Amino acid sequence: MKEKRTDYPGKQMYDLAAQLFPICRSITGNGVRQTLAILKLRLPGMRITEVPSGTKVFDWEVPREWNISEGYIENSSGERVIDFQENNLHIMGYSVPVDVYVTLEELKRHIYTEPSQPDVIPYLTSYYKENFGFCMSENQKNSLPEDTYHMVIKSQLTEGSLTYGELVIPGEREEEIFFSTYVCHPSMANNECSGPALAAQLAEWLLERSERRYTYRFVWIPETIGSITYLSRHWKERKSRVIAGFNLSCVGDNDHYSMVETRYGDTLADRVLKNALRHHGKEFTVYPFLKRGSDERQYNAPGVDLPVVSFCRTKYGEFPQYHTSADNMDYVSPEGFQGSFEVMTKVVCALEHNWNYQVKVLCEPQLGKRGLYPTISRKGQYDKIYAITTFIAYADGKNDLIAISDRIGCPVDMLIDIAEKLKENGLIAAVEER
Amino acid sequence: MKEKRTDYPGKQMYDLAAQLFPICRSITGNGVRQTLAILKLRLPGMRITEVPSGTKVFDWEVPREWNISEGYIENSSGERVIDFQENNLHIMGYSVPVDVYVTLEELKRHIYTEPSQPDVIPYLTSYYKENFGFCMSENQKNSLPEDTYHMVIKSQLTEGSLTYGELVIPGEREEEIFFSTYVCHPSMANNECSGPALAAQLAEWLLERSERRYTYRFVWIPETIGSITYLSRHWKERKSRVIAGFNLSCVGDNDHYSMVETRYGDTLADRVLKNALRHHGKEFTVYPFLKRGSDERQYNAPGVDLPVVSFCRTKYGEFPQYHTSADNMDYVSPEGFQGSFEVMTKVVCALEHNWNYQVKVLCEPQLGKRGLYPTISRKGQYDKIYAITTFIAYADGKNDLIAISDRIGCPVDMLIDIAEKLKENGLIAAVEER
Amino acid sequence: MKEKRTDYPGKQMYDLAAQLFPICRSITGNGVRQTLAILKLRLPGMRITEVPSGTKVFDWEVPREWNISEGYIENSSGERVIDFQENNLHIMGYSVPVDVYVTLEELKRHIYTEPSQPDVIPYLTSYYKENFGFCMSENQKNSLPEDTYHMVIKSQLTEGSLTYGELVIPGEREEEIFFSTYVCHPSMANNECSGPALAAQLAEWLLERSERRYTYRFVWIPETIGSITYLSRHWKERKSRVIAGFNLSCVGDNDHYSMVETRYGDTLADRVLKNALRHHGKEFTVYPFLKRGSDERQYNAPGVDLPVVSFCRTKYGEFPQYHTSADNMDYVSPEGFQGSFEVMTKVVCALEHNWNYQVKVLCEPQLGKRGLYPTISRKGQYDKIYAITTFIAYADGKNDLIAISDRIGCPVDMLIDIAEKLKENGLIAAVEER
Repeated sequence: MKEKRTDYPGKQMYDLAAQLFPICRSITGNGVRQTLAILKLRLPGMRITEVPSGTKVFDWEVPREWNISEGYIENSSGERVIDFQENNLHIMGYSVPVDVYVTLEELKRHIYTEPSQPDVIPYLTSYYKENFGFCMSENQKNSLPEDTYHMVIKSQLTEGSLTYGELVIPGEREEEIFFSTYVCHPSMANNECSGPALAAQLAEWLLERSERRYTYRFVWIPETIGSITYLSRHWKERKSRVIAGFNLSCVGDNDHYSMVETRYGDTLADRVLKNALRHHGKEFTVYPFLKRGSDERQYNAPGVDLPVVSFCRTKYGEFPQYHTSADNMDYVSPEGFQGSFEVMTKVVCALEHNWNYQVKVLCEPQLGKRGLYPTISRKGQYDKIYAITTFIAYADGKNDLIAISDRIGCPVDMLIDIAEKLKENGLIAAVEER
Repeated sequence: MKEKRTDYPGKQMYDLAAQLFPICRSITGNGVRQTLAILKLRLPGMRITEVPSGTKVFDWEVPREWNISEGYIENSSGERVIDFQENNLHIMGYSVPVDVYVTLEELKRHIYTEPSQPDVIPYLTSYYKENFGFCMSENQKNSLPEDTYHMVIKSQLTEGSLTYGELVIPGEREEEIFFSTYVCHPSMANNECSGPALAAQLAEWLLERSERRYTYRFVWIPETIGSITYLSRHWKERKSRVIAGFNLSCVGDNDHYSMVETRYGDTLADRVLKNALRHHGKEFTVYPFLKRGSDERQYNAPGVDLPVVSFCRTKYGEFPQYHTSADNMDYVSPEGFQGSFEVMTKVVCALEHNWNYQVKVLCEPQLGKRGLYPTISRKGQYDKIYAITTFIAYADGKNDLIAISDRIGCPVDMLIDIAEKLKENGLIAAVEER
Repeated sequence: MKEKRTDYPGKQMYDLAAQLFPICRSITGNGVRQTLAILKLRLPGMRITEVPSGTKVFDWEVPREWNISEGYIENSSGERVIDFQENNLHIMGYSVPVDVYVTLEELKRHIYTEPSQPDVIPYLTSYYKENFGFCMSENQKNSLPEDTYHMVIKSQLTEGSLTYGELVIPGEREEEIFFSTYVCHPSMANNECSGPALAAQLAEWLLERSERRYTYRFVWIPETIGSITYLSRHWKERKSRVIAGFNLSCVGDNDHYSMVETRYGDTLADRVLKNALRHHGKEFTVYPFLKRGSDERQYNAPGVDLPVVSFCRTKYGEFPQYHTSADNMDYVSPEGFQGSFEVMTKVVCALEHNWNYQVKVLCEPQLGKRGLYPTISRKGQYDKIYAITTFIAYADGKNDLIAISDRIGCPVDMLIDIAEKLKENGLIAAVEER
């Protein structure tokens, strides 16, 4: 059995994240392409799109493409103080090339640390202003002796393109469930090798289903500029089709769960994810849109108005390892991934079965004659069939399954089973809603 | 004065309940007929209806009629261990006939007890599956010696009918206030000799009123199958006329008050009963529809949609005596009945006077010149006329009397007096609402 | 600098209130005229209106005009026990003339005190019933020896008129912001020399503004009969124009802040004043309309329906000095007035800038290229631009500035600055709302 266990979804996602981890990604460049290539091996249907530098995307412009081959600081003895090969966080993202000898004082002007966490390398970028920088731990910076240092960054900022991947899994309806995650962070595990891995696993799981009521669409994109670029090309179609969307980020740790609501917190995506978390048995936090910070910002922008929530284990920015070298493969775990996968598959199941039901008889149906009710009535026994009778009591065509679950406190998966039994018995019918 | 006191409504209801108590009722049969006959002596206008066994009533069918003449267990010495004549709870409701000699072991397979309350006889029925059973205390069961026992039940399950009583007290309008209670429980006092007694008392009290804005309709029916049967014949008319309804059950104990809301808890019936309880000065509990369990289930079923709440003292299922022999005439009291009567008469008064009022002058009327306001204004004195001025402030045609009471915190009966005075002075007028 | 400080608004209002304090006002008479004359010196645009005694005003009638020249009690030695010249609260408002010699016992029947505060003279009136009375401290009353006393009141109740002042400060729009305060109380400082002084200061401040989106209307009127008289002549026009109104009363003490809501607590006036108080940094209490007591009663009467809240520091009736001689110029302070002025100017600024804004680009605008965003992104830095990005996130045309402030927790004045910057950058536009 142990061998089998290594194949469970949480482990598969962990392994995929581990494969993505070493790649040096940024919002453009070959790191993104390598990442998408690995994902496409698992999901051959993925379509990869390149959008040229300089393309106008709403208020923005696709930036020049950044690639880097080397980056280090060498002391006068030729020893490398830090080296991009060891940890790609050592070089500030989008650093321009440099090759100069400097004093310690001058060097320090280009070193960035996180003084409150003296052991970790912070993650920094300078996408939209020409700059360069080296990142290291506060402790290492403080231990540097007076010397002449050689600062070297071999990078190119060139006309190129921004790259993203997209996968569509068709269903009976054109209405879509949308998943978005990003592929622009260098070697950090939870933020963000975890989101792409969860998205891939969910896509595989959906492809295996024989029936899908909805179409499912996944995008793996660079954060912010990627979602803006994607939306600039597809927002009208998404707006007309997406009924619920989920931005996946920081889904690999095994702490509690979190979500960030949509702008007004009242969409189907908000309702279904809250419901799933409520019944998942672990603590969770619902952050209002005021606490947003990932691509839900773009999807919920006024005029775009897509019903997209963010789903996280511990929310981005809320764990100390966030945006540092401590967000490594030890911080995430197969169990953490597994929990996220279970929540999101419950969300999908709930959406697939989220009909408004209408009971087809007046007054309570006689459950006893259909074997759905104990035949000897006695004190205390009613509790056992609470879910079934209460479900029927609210099957008045006005409530979808999620609303009934929220009202009566039974998990949606239990209600799906009940609805199935009642349908077989001709007692309820799905009403075409929405 | 003491003699007079024996005639107060609480005592009259208690006495009527005591008269109903010994009768062996079930969902059909002569016990129901005897019960209705006693009630009809008090309310000659009551119409008694018989619905034949086998009649289709929505998803159900009127069952065969059950009557019982004898039921006992005899030991080998010819001594009766239990006897239906002593307590009709000893025989499971709807037991089929039996006449066999059995060992103690075999006997015990047919004995039902409530182990958590070892002194009481539990109340059990098996309406919809052929079965028989004997009920006794756990203690008695445990004290039975090895012996040969004679199990005897002389009952008949025959084509007959289901019986219910109905009384209509006409008012100025066809719109109805509806009361329902049930007559299908054997010798238990609170659940349910109390509901029929309260309904009878309310009906007498209404018949004595010279003016009735609304029509009042009372039904005394078997629980579940009775309300389903009744609705199968009358639901369309009820749906078009009933503006508020009250299911009366467990109204004779003297503990706190309770109610069970309608499906969404927002009807006139919910509002008026909550308001009355709020101002009645005793603790009360509002149970959501999730905690339903009596005939409010049928009246609120999707498609039936009657605005019917349940009114109780301690709610069915919430007192330990419930559905046992301990629910006897000691558990209920004249004081308990009296409290229920007072709440329900307040409810009726509130409904009769529940107009939307509109003030007929702009700005505050001058109360002083009409003797409605103290003429020397000084610090602290305003409180005394708070109710009258605040009533006027919300007499904008948008609020009914109950809404104003809820908003300003004055009991409806005080507002009825105020409204009367203001109407006499030409300061307000009732607006035709709803 | 100290000299300059004496000119700050709080000090100016305090000085004006001190000038108004000694005048003996009532709901009619020369005291009101003197008060308005002083205010008109500051606000020459004020129009003074006289409404003759006997004029029908809705359910009321303008009373006869009351003036008083002398009022005292003299003992048999010719010493004045109390004298109107010393404190005009000694004579009950609207006292008819009297000139009789009485015993102590008889005298006491005409003396009013506040036994719970034995040191203060209470304020009493008898506007609508012919009466006379003397007010003194409980202690003084108890110290009066047996004697023959001379009760003298030289007053006239004559056909005259009720007087009020009105000032209109035009703006771009006919829609009005309305301020009301009253000028009918004799020598009490907070209630009510403070309201007229704050109204005058606000009017001066508004006159100095070069641009006004709205028209501003101020009335200085006698309480109750004055607002009724005013409304009887102008309510239709006010109802068609006033979008928010503020009744100013008890605004000179330096304790916490209060407001009384409109009838349903949901108008623009409610929203803007709550918002301003929320961000003013001091404790405040929002009283529901149930706790009303000043002219908000008339403005909010059914059918009149003006959106007028009351603004106070400590609410009328809630401070022990209320309606006694202890409400003197020591109870109010320049600091107290200054706080009220600051709240009300914030209210005006918020209303003037209360547009619905719509962002003009899809997705988040690129703030960096406009110098509105730090260019190096790193952990923790996002907070600094929280207000600007969150403002944009809710600039969807559905929320006015006050609603956004309420939602995101930033004060309106900060949002006004942000909106200005974003407008300059072409990123948002005001939507014509309401």
